[in-house]
Amino acid sequence: MSAPRTDVEEVARANTAFYEAMERGDFEELSTLWLAPMDIDGAEHTADPADPEDLEEGTDRGAEVSCVHPGWPVLTGRGEVLRSYALIMANTEYIQFFLTDVEVAVEGDTALVTCTENILSGGPAPADSDELGPLVGQLVVATNVFRRTPDGWKLWSHHASPVLAENEEDEEEDTPS
Amino acid sequence: MSAPRTDVEEVARANTAFYEAMERGDFEELSTLWLAPMDIDGAEHTADPADPEDLEEGTDRGAEVSCVHPGWPVLTGRGEVLRSYALIMANTEYIQFFLTDVEVAVEGDTALVTCTENILSGGPAPADSDELGPLVGQLVVATNVFRRTPDGWKLWSHHASPVLAENEEDEEEDTPS
Repeated sequence: MSAPRTDVEEVARANTAFYEAMERGDFEELSTLWLAPMDIDGAEHTADPADPEDLEEGTDRGAEVSCVHPGWPVLTGRGEVLRSYALIMANTEYIQFFLTDVEVAVEGDTALVTCTENILSGGPAPADSDELGPLVGQLVVATNVFRRTPDGWKLWSHHASPVLAENEEDEEEDTPS
Repeated sequence: MSAPRTDVEEVARANTAFYEAMERGDFEELSTLWLAPMDIDGAEHTADPADPEDLEEGTDRGAEVSCVHPGWPVLTGRGEVLRSYALIMANTEYIQFFLTDVEVAVEGDTALVTCTENILSGGPAPADSDELGPLVGQLVVATNVFRRTPDGWKLWSHHASPVLAENEEDEEEDTPS
């Protein structure tokens, strides 16, 4: 048996497992890493504050997950989120994540992870070719929110976005003009 | 006195207050809306799992906040985050956020908000002109994480990113090729 691990270590492992499942194209594993309504016991609610019915009736939409892929709009709920991964996996022949700047913060039953995803990926061969699509490098940053569950830390939210400027000190290019 | 509000309503108000402070260029107000180490009592820790010292010594970096502006790398800690807002405010003559698709989920002392920021902004007048810079429209999505504190819900993380495709159903353009 291994020694007991701290929350920070456990969250870091859950975060790594998420990216490794993507690299392997392991949809089943990926599905188990995302928070499911059964993981949470009752306290949660998700509501649209602009919808009076949600507030008056205290509609419980379950522990709804959310996901933003680079350049995408927000996807909400396990169905929409998992479908997006099935689609991405079907269109990705090869993908590797080199994670840097991994920072883990734990507050009670929630953990916040930020990291830089240095991505190398390639699509499937074009219809008229036997060769793989060209490899593409991408610089992406992610904020991943995890919840503690009896079955380990599970992803509640993943937000990834392209880095369009190399350096936060590069003021002229970064700020609205 | 107003009637007691639900968590979802309170979080939605904190989220709105954040964008209104940006619209007014109210740096003081914005500073109070971001989580500060004094807001949290002891349970938190932030650590780099790749740094053995962090794990062995249980380094407590405080309730470190993180922020990603559209196209930017990750900013970590109140100092870096608040400096970025001072910079953005100094370079923004006019900014307005039309929020749509606001979704609020509360789990214990953490709340997750996703929303679409329809932004209209303008920079200051160029040096050789009296007129304001041109107005620019931007479609941005955000994931905002709030923590419950004795002083209300405070921002723990803000991640905003440009939407590069109009529609998540637009599969051909959205997926890696």
